[in-house]
Amino acid sequence: MEKIILTGDRPTGKLHLGHYVGSLKRRVELQNSGEFDKIFVMIADAQALTDNADNPEKVRQNIIEVALDYLSVGIDPSKTTIFIQSQVPELTELAFYYMNLVTVSRVQRNPTVKTEIKMRNFEQSIPVGFFCYPVSQASDITAFRATTVPVGEDQAPMIELTREIVNRFNNVYGDTLVEPEILLPENEACQRLPGTDGKAKMSKSLGNCIYLSDSAKEVSKKVKSMYTDPLHLNVCDPGHLEGNCPFIYLDAFCKEEHFERYLPEYKNLQELKDHYTRGGLGDGTVKKFLAAVIEEELAPIRERRKEWEQNIPAVYDILKRGSEEARRVAASTLDDVRRAMRINYFDDMDLVSEQSKKYSGK
Amino acid sequence: MEKIILTGDRPTGKLHLGHYVGSLKRRVELQNSGEFDKIFVMIADAQALTDNADNPEKVRQNIIEVALDYLSVGIDPSKTTIFIQSQVPELTELAFYYMNLVTVSRVQRNPTVKTEIKMRNFEQSIPVGFFCYPVSQASDITAFRATTVPVGEDQAPMIELTREIVNRFNNVYGDTLVEPEILLPENEACQRLPGTDGKAKMSKSLGNCIYLSDSAKEVSKKVKSMYTDPLHLNVCDPGHLEGNCPFIYLDAFCKEEHFERYLPEYKNLQELKDHYTRGGLGDGTVKKFLAAVIEEELAPIRERRKEWEQNIPAVYDILKRGSEEARRVAASTLDDVRRAMRINYFDDMDLVSEQSKKYSGK
Repeated sequence: MEKIILTGDRPTGKLHLGHYVGSLKRRVELQNSGEFDKIFVMIADAQALTDNADNPEKVRQNIIEVALDYLSVGIDPSKTTIFIQSQVPELTELAFYYMNLVTVSRVQRNPTVKTEIKMRNFEQSIPVGFFCYPVSQASDITAFRATTVPVGEDQAPMIELTREIVNRFNNVYGDTLVEPEILLPENEACQRLPGTDGKAKMSKSLGNCIYLSDSAKEVSKKVKSMYTDPLHLNVCDPGHLEGNCPFIYLDAFCKEEHFERYLPEYKNLQELKDHYTRGGLGDGTVKKFLAAVIEEELAPIRERRKEWEQNIPAVYDILKRGSEEARRVAASTLDDVRRAMRINYFDDMDLVSEQSKKYSGK
Repeated sequence: MEKIILTGDRPTGKLHLGHYVGSLKRRVELQNSGEFDKIFVMIADAQALTDNADNPEKVRQNIIEVALDYLSVGIDPSKTTIFIQSQVPELTELAFYYMNLVTVSRVQRNPTVKTEIKMRNFEQSIPVGFFCYPVSQASDITAFRATTVPVGEDQAPMIELTREIVNRFNNVYGDTLVEPEILLPENEACQRLPGTDGKAKMSKSLGNCIYLSDSAKEVSKKVKSMYTDPLHLNVCDPGHLEGNCPFIYLDAFCKEEHFERYLPEYKNLQELKDHYTRGGLGDGTVKKFLAAVIEEELAPIRERRKEWEQNIPAVYDILKRGSEEARRVAASTLDDVRRAMRINYFDDMDLVSEQSKKYSGK
């Protein structure tokens, strides 16, 4: 069986370091590993509209931002199909049939849905579309016959629901759909990068993000203002690592070679941490080092972004061709689904002859 | 503005007299009135699957039965577009966008949905697809820019929800969709014909239906066994009209001319009723008269059905051409919807130039 990846992002803003360490970097590694036959990366505009129905312009403007971010980090359109969800209408039809195989209470019990509803302060006014998006996600995954979905642990219940839908479909209509597996991040530090203010998550509305498209100056400024250890008032005081942003970021980004280049006084991160915790190491030194480490990662990304920004029509062309390719694949899955459900009436010559016989035999 | 009708049935069984007096007869009258520019009649197989997901064969087999019933009662494919819902995938895409404009609690409060959930003993295990079908219905109606939806009073809350969705869409994205009006039945007796057992509704599972495709013999047998007045034991006893099936059926079917032909001892239905209530008129006489009246209505329908039954491929061809036409219209509405939402990215040259300018100006 082919190994196929499906993954993606909602285009509600530019992508940031949290996205980068949490998923983008991994995607590029998986893309270049040669282990996968096909990779589909979806810009989930239709899903973004489920809770942005009255602000489609935000979604519209951010599609190109997300595409630029993808291309800048090294997602390669010759290896990976980048497409826009709404341009593959087959996905809505698939979702419609899956919606008959899941109960309302099953979706309500889904912990990811519960959390997301809470996060958005929806309470009683959840849009039906938002409520149904786990089913829509099952459609996105199965349409591309994805075997592998690289997501964080928090998304595990969603993938589980997809697997349930696949099993139910295959039981009722015969073996048709591929059951996907979740692929969890390897590096725990990468699972969730906190915001620069120390809050659990980077979020545009909290203004605590470092964007992939930030200039070197912006990045350095944001690193300088990072939340560290409020008890570490004087350089000589012992510092604490827990919840200390620069160290959490270093866990995610720093390699030993960085010390040779930018901070040769230390051999590795452990030595730096030891000095910090016993006292005598200032936050400024750590932050300066972190800024250099991040800059090393971001500079080539920023460079590539600049090039693509000068050629927006080419980016649209990539999205258009990707969406066409995605549509071909999804349409072929949909054909299988319709055939399995036997609702392909006009291709189904048996049906006409069965019914003709029924009446001529009367 | 064009006057356009959208109406239809779930293909879960052959159509019966309840359907006939409740909607089919009216549809033919509306079709032949010349007052409407377009009429779309939908065989709602996708909707039927929302609560028959594990029995698609039942739906599949009944599509042709419903089509035969339509053609037999006089729905004329040269005047009316008969189509199969699942063959118009544009409807699912429209529904998806509308689902973002309605809250879960709004659907839950819908009295029609409440009743239907109760009727099906769903309780906690309502399929998501069934729960969402009011939104799907809004998509069916608006896709064809229907101005007029002829349904019973019990469906009024559904049409109201469609109107809400239309208003919300037009408010958020600009004037795009047509707000439909409900067209209630004129004749109160026609609103709901009871089953032959006196139960409120004809229902296949209760075995109390007279089908349009029943033979004359079957009809006569079913009329003979009809529930009348349990207190009317002897012919000379006064009879009661309330809940008395033959009289309720006569209210729906009988015209004065029928008396001349089949029961010239009476001038009209009132005289017959008066005799029955004062005593001296047997149920047998009423039933024999009713059987003749129904037979007069059903004989030509049965005749036409027999002809169509001998030419099933022609029926499929009508459905295929109707579905193609329906698809053209729905696709054109969907184009308008996508343009209004500005998610027609690849046709939207403004977007490319806006974004190009944004970056070249940097």
